Amino acid sequence: MLISGTPTRTIRREQDVVRIIDQTRLPHELRLRDLVTLSDAAEAISVMRVRGAPLIGATAAYGMALACRHDVSDAGLIAAADRLVATRPTAVNLRWAVQRVVSKLLTLPQGGRLEAAWSEADAICEEDVAQNQAIGRHGLGVLQALAAQKSGPLNILTHCNAGWLATVDWGTALAPIFAAADAGLALHVWVDETRPRNQGASLTAWELQHAGIAHHVIADNAGGHLMQQGEVDVCIVGTDRTAANGDVANKIGTYLKALAAFDNCVPFYVAAPGPSIDFNLPDGGAIPIEYRDPEEVRRIQGVDADGRLTSVCLTPAASPASNPAFDVTPARLVTGLITERGVCAAKRDALSALFPDRAPQ
Amino acid sequence: MLISGTPTRTIRREQDVVRIIDQTRLPHELRLRDLVTLSDAAEAISVMRVRGAPLIGATAAYGMALACRHDVSDAGLIAAADRLVATRPTAVNLRWAVQRVVSKLLTLPQGGRLEAAWSEADAICEEDVAQNQAIGRHGLGVLQALAAQKSGPLNILTHCNAGWLATVDWGTALAPIFAAADAGLALHVWVDETRPRNQGASLTAWELQHAGIAHHVIADNAGGHLMQQGEVDVCIVGTDRTAANGDVANKIGTYLKALAAFDNCVPFYVAAPGPSIDFNLPDGGAIPIEYRDPEEVRRIQGVDADGRLTSVCLTPAASPASNPAFDVTPARLVTGLITERGVCAAKRDALSALFPDRAPQ
Repeated sequence: MLISGTPTRTIRREQDVVRIIDQTRLPHELRLRDLVTLSDAAEAISVMRVRGAPLIGATAAYGMALACRHDVSDAGLIAAADRLVATRPTAVNLRWAVQRVVSKLLTLPQGGRLEAAWSEADAICEEDVAQNQAIGRHGLGVLQALAAQKSGPLNILTHCNAGWLATVDWGTALAPIFAAADAGLALHVWVDETRPRNQGASLTAWELQHAGIAHHVIADNAGGHLMQQGEVDVCIVGTDRTAANGDVANKIGTYLKALAAFDNCVPFYVAAPGPSIDFNLPDGGAIPIEYRDPEEVRRIQGVDADGRLTSVCLTPAASPASNPAFDVTPARLVTGLITERGVCAAKRDALSALFPDRAPQ
Repeated sequence: MLISGTPTRTIRREQDVVRIIDQTRLPHELRLRDLVTLSDAAEAISVMRVRGAPLIGATAAYGMALACRHDVSDAGLIAAADRLVATRPTAVNLRWAVQRVVSKLLTLPQGGRLEAAWSEADAICEEDVAQNQAIGRHGLGVLQALAAQKSGPLNILTHCNAGWLATVDWGTALAPIFAAADAGLALHVWVDETRPRNQGASLTAWELQHAGIAHHVIADNAGGHLMQQGEVDVCIVGTDRTAANGDVANKIGTYLKALAAFDNCVPFYVAAPGPSIDFNLPDGGAIPIEYRDPEEVRRIQGVDADGRLTSVCLTPAASPASNPAFDVTPARLVTGLITERGVCAAKRDALSALFPDRAPQ
């Protein structure tokens, strides 16, 4: 996507260095950062310099390549894979990408492993871009159909950031929005700020603003009221992990918006790329939910009056906090899943029909 | 309630000065502020140095007395009343308290009006305290019954601040919690931070911490997940305005928690003092919802590493925000209303039976 007119991706490699956008500085500062070791990659995932399931997967794949620069032994590969997988327990793409690289490398002689790791990680990135463009095309059809039923701009609510910053390019939930804007559809986006880490206020708003798409940032509390008032025509969110029955684990708070959408007959779509679907998981109940550092709730980062990036404490010094990072939205609240192969109901049969090559027989 | 062991109220008068706690400085700093003119009172309500429906009512009543120090004419009283009522359009207590003082004063000769205004405002404060203690007693019964059904501490979720800082003393939603703690019930409170103004993280947490009640601050997004996991036994929230059919207008985001409670069979109670009930309002659809300054969403205040109270910007500089301050929770999602006269269903008949003196025949 464009940053001030320049086509940019969230991650790219130049020779044996991987360059990322340090998303912890956004929206206030655009800073690039080079990853040169396995530790750099693990740290970038862990502290969320990169975030979003697909981008985490791509970064982890490059992390395997960075690990190969120093150790291409079977034991080395497995240790590197374990370390990367441990950084974020909920994301299924992370596991998928690491496993894909490791499986490939273990079939090769050690001399060919470094080059193969780079190639495989590059391929994962290109596939992600193509997949997101396909989600954008399929989602565009959904938005066009909804827009045809009303006058005025289509009001879309999204939670967290499932934009291009969450992927290698285009995004998942935002891909249909970018595609719709390109197609000339009149749009307005309600951006949930998405506490505690505010990926909506900081990243989604930043993306939409750079793309020239009308939007308002809202407190996470506001979406229910806006739906009651008829101010939301459709919700689109991403997913970190999709169970075989269509339950989705996504950023904490997604479930609350799905409940409100259901209560107000607002269509609720989940952009679910194939790699997010775990056909071995019968439903969402078994998805382990990551609890992150409570300081993410107690503090927040922004720019002060002097333009300095500053962290401030919001709670009494002695009050503890709790920080579940994801919740599970049951399939019964999901109108449809937008995948790279088309839109389907959030149901086992429908998912299996779209992905017969991956669904268990 | 106690602040570091000293019994304190949120508002009290000494002669012809009204002293409030400036709640915009909490939880980081306890600062008192004197109101000496009508303008002081209107400003304190408008910028939320005082907030919470009952405390707004009490402050407005004292505001009428402060106005009387300079002008006790009929026209002066009506102008002062109009000014106070305009500060916060959603709060019904505000209108109720101002009307009560004005009605009283208009029956008196001008010479007796100032003293009568002080007396009436004092009486409103004392009645608020007694009313909240009664809500505490009735709510205690609800909590004791729920606690008897489980082992371990009772987990209560609350939204915003309906504690003693929202009233003259005791609070509404927190009154049963303080009463339960006094009665020795094992409790733990989930405190919604309540963006955008974070009254939960700053005020409710501060109250609970001073009262020695176990609690965790959570992002507003977290409550649905906690309910899915069985970590919430009951929700108790306040109300700014209760319609005759039991619909309640409360801080933005309340509706989302009520939906989640309903979806997970968690009892959802609203502490509704009599003055919050508007028997002329058939349902919540007609309640005007205040939209506040979007900067409340774009920015947040906390203390920085040097202990300075600092406001930071959270969004891209060019991204606009929208800030509805209340939402309406339909009566169908409310398990019961805890009033000073007892607990009742959120239904027209039940409310009318408790308040036959106020319900239209």
